[in-house]
Amino acid sequence: MKKKLSEIAALIGAELKGEDLEVTGINALELADEKELSFVESGKFLEAAKNSRARALLVSPALAGKLEGKSLIVTPNVRAAVAKIGFLFYEEKEHPGGISELAFVAEGAEIHEEASIYPFVYVGEKAKIGPRTVLYPGVYVGDEAEIAEEVIIYPNAVIYPRTKIGPRTIIHAGAVVGSDGFGYAQENGRHLKIPHFGRVEIAEEVEIGANTTIDRGTFGSTKIGSGTKIDNLIQIAHNVQIGRGCAFAGQVGFTGSVRVGNFVLVGGQAGISANLGDQTMVAAKAGVAKEVPPGKAVAGAPALEIAKWRRCVAAYERLPEMVKELRELKAKIAELEEKLNERDKS
Amino acid sequence: MKKKLSEIAALIGAELKGEDLEVTGINALELADEKELSFVESGKFLEAAKNSRARALLVSPALAGKLEGKSLIVTPNVRAAVAKIGFLFYEEKEHPGGISELAFVAEGAEIHEEASIYPFVYVGEKAKIGPRTVLYPGVYVGDEAEIAEEVIIYPNAVIYPRTKIGPRTIIHAGAVVGSDGFGYAQENGRHLKIPHFGRVEIAEEVEIGANTTIDRGTFGSTKIGSGTKIDNLIQIAHNVQIGRGCAFAGQVGFTGSVRVGNFVLVGGQAGISANLGDQTMVAAKAGVAKEVPPGKAVAGAPALEIAKWRRCVAAYERLPEMVKELRELKAKIAELEEKLNERDKS
Amino acid sequence: MKKKLSEIAALIGAELKGEDLEVTGINALELADEKELSFVESGKFLEAAKNSRARALLVSPALAGKLEGKSLIVTPNVRAAVAKIGFLFYEEKEHPGGISELAFVAEGAEIHEEASIYPFVYVGEKAKIGPRTVLYPGVYVGDEAEIAEEVIIYPNAVIYPRTKIGPRTIIHAGAVVGSDGFGYAQENGRHLKIPHFGRVEIAEEVEIGANTTIDRGTFGSTKIGSGTKIDNLIQIAHNVQIGRGCAFAGQVGFTGSVRVGNFVLVGGQAGISANLGDQTMVAAKAGVAKEVPPGKAVAGAPALEIAKWRRCVAAYERLPEMVKELRELKAKIAELEEKLNERDKS
Repeated sequence: MKKKLSEIAALIGAELKGEDLEVTGINALELADEKELSFVESGKFLEAAKNSRARALLVSPALAGKLEGKSLIVTPNVRAAVAKIGFLFYEEKEHPGGISELAFVAEGAEIHEEASIYPFVYVGEKAKIGPRTVLYPGVYVGDEAEIAEEVIIYPNAVIYPRTKIGPRTIIHAGAVVGSDGFGYAQENGRHLKIPHFGRVEIAEEVEIGANTTIDRGTFGSTKIGSGTKIDNLIQIAHNVQIGRGCAFAGQVGFTGSVRVGNFVLVGGQAGISANLGDQTMVAAKAGVAKEVPPGKAVAGAPALEIAKWRRCVAAYERLPEMVKELRELKAKIAELEEKLNERDKS
Repeated sequence: MKKKLSEIAALIGAELKGEDLEVTGINALELADEKELSFVESGKFLEAAKNSRARALLVSPALAGKLEGKSLIVTPNVRAAVAKIGFLFYEEKEHPGGISELAFVAEGAEIHEEASIYPFVYVGEKAKIGPRTVLYPGVYVGDEAEIAEEVIIYPNAVIYPRTKIGPRTIIHAGAVVGSDGFGYAQENGRHLKIPHFGRVEIAEEVEIGANTTIDRGTFGSTKIGSGTKIDNLIQIAHNVQIGRGCAFAGQVGFTGSVRVGNFVLVGGQAGISANLGDQTMVAAKAGVAKEVPPGKAVAGAPALEIAKWRRCVAAYERLPEMVKELRELKAKIAELEEKLNERDKS
Repeated sequence: MKKKLSEIAALIGAELKGEDLEVTGINALELADEKELSFVESGKFLEAAKNSRARALLVSPALAGKLEGKSLIVTPNVRAAVAKIGFLFYEEKEHPGGISELAFVAEGAEIHEEASIYPFVYVGEKAKIGPRTVLYPGVYVGDEAEIAEEVIIYPNAVIYPRTKIGPRTIIHAGAVVGSDGFGYAQENGRHLKIPHFGRVEIAEEVEIGANTTIDRGTFGSTKIGSGTKIDNLIQIAHNVQIGRGCAFAGQVGFTGSVRVGNFVLVGGQAGISANLGDQTMVAAKAGVAKEVPPGKAVAGAPALEIAKWRRCVAAYERLPEMVKELRELKAKIAELEEKLNERDKS
């Protein structure tokens, strides 16, 4: 596939400076060949850009003057441009369409004729699969689940009964959506299982990482809002409600019934057992047990407001010194006391 | 399905106060309709209970006097009542029974005629599957594994060879039971794999969460005691021995050969590399590297006795202030010393 | 199976002291019967060794004089001996060879005639599967993936398209290799997905644990070096580069583009977002956000050099006391000041 830089620039509404070359793909600075377009995410990569074999670059206006001899597509948001242009060159697999003879479709399931159902897929009773949706090999869709259009579910993911999944959502391999919540009553030292009547509802354009698990609600639903992106190996417990446009890095965990606002960012391995307001940020490895108000950032376990956490961390590293200083001060004070006492006597 | 409140009260040995209504289900206070039974877990929910459309409520004796106009089933353990009554209204899927034509059963496997084996299930040589046990689509059961009666194994879970699973145990989707332990010998900078001769033995009424992994023993068995409940994405290494009636929240990890007593509770994302006595509690995100004696609770990483941990956390948040105070004290002492020295001179 | 001790000793180049017994297997001290060989990993187990029913033991030279009446195979590296001898007695499953009639092999895939492809395996277009490689039930291999010889892929593992896997690598059940990296561009509050052109390249003799996830590169490859061992439930993000001979314990996470040297050891639940030099060690639960130079060991979150971390942890446990001491010192200083002031007056 070949594209002219002028075409690409037009597509993203950007300006082309320099020769209107033809490019065959997009690639990282150090990997690109002479026929590929590359990109400069910040001034940090200016030297790499100069040394790159790529003759065409996506750059921000601030860097455009510093790259003589290259053809430049100038755009304020280079990363967004990479996302959009990338898909020009990305060859999506063409799916066969229809239901494989090696798949199993239960009674009453409704599978749109434009859906692709691969071998070893199981679709339960009365489940609905929308147009252009792809169920890769080994996917399980439980009874009465509803999968909208243009959803991609990668191999061996498991969708429990009655789950709802919105348009253009992507679910990666091995993810489990809709399993029983971890809810028990205690009686005479036994854990009595509480039945889970609820479901999981996933909105549109959500992405769910490989081997992530999302439990269904006890009563009512566990909900994931539109455009929210969830990385691998994340645990989302029963009745959690997550807003729009959030992004959670790998191995994060949410305990039951937590509410998460819109545009919330959570770093890897954080654990969340309290509500997170809109546009909050939680650092990697934080342990959040107290509600975070809108717009705030927290870090640490137990989590603190991030500026405070930084000061605490800095002080923590000085702790062994502080122990020593405290000991010295004690000695000095004892000395001073003695001196004073001696004078009192004299 | 309709049930009279008097029937329900009788079932759990509780008292009915008020009109003997018919109810069609059980639901949360804010979700219930007029025909559903709801429940009040604590006084915190009293207002919600008054405002609920539900006309029938499960309540504790302490709250029974405060909910005029509602029909009340009065019971000391409301949560246990919810668990028991919930199953009255929970429609369990009826399984077809028998072996799907799309399943594979190896030579010498013994599958009880009342078991349900779904499509794309693989049952290995000489494996045994008990009565009323359900293997959902994509489940793998290795050679010589023994699965008792009324076990439910959800889609795509993997049971390695020779694993033993007790009656009424539930294994959620994607869980892996019996994989090789992470055991190597070091020789000349190489990791030599140590063969794992052991197996995993899971007792009765255990529940294992989605995508949880349990390794088999090097020699001897990894064991999970009866009634123990294990959440999603938990790692249990080779030769771990876990007692009865424990509950572990999501993403907890246990290192090899750890011994865990009975009725132990572990919070999410904790890491355990030392033995835990009976009825111990480990807080979320704790890192336990020293044995915890029976009945004790610990928190933090490295874990401390919980009351001590609380004091340390409180002090930690004051650290930046302490640094400042220490600096001030130093200055004051220097001042005092100077004063004294000056007097000495004068 | 029976082996003479002299045969076993010869195999590992070790010395036999005592009667040349025949043994039927190898087992732990407390589990071995009279016909089994056992092993003493350190002096700590000397009593257990004396009490063991095993009449034949693998021991280090230092302990050889302390175990009268037992037949001893004396070797400096007992654990390595266990690994090598273990496989003498370990009965590897014999695989049927060939492609199951219940598997699906897409057009243009090349499967070596000595490979074993179990039921419900899916092999994508133009994928290559090497000799004596085993694909267990439910494994998915994407288009153009290349799996070398003598690889074992356990049930329901998922290998995304174009992944390369080297000889003798083992991939445990439910592992996902090659999923999309978690990469987005931000534009007007939306996360724009960045396409992932890269792949995962896994060298030879790697072991990957159950339900571990490895994302493919955005551009270029995510790489795992030869002989590296990766435990269960680990997250390796896009473009991570891992060297040779590393070992990572369960639930560790690596963020995108991190570089890890050779012979690096990482403890369970650690999170790594910075480069790790050769032969570095990271303690369990550490959070590494700053590069670790070759040969160094770190612990804690944020991670500190391990000796410093130990001092900080010790001081942290004394924090509540320090708070009290600081308060007392303040009071004493106030007292001293007052005394001096009084004298000034008098």
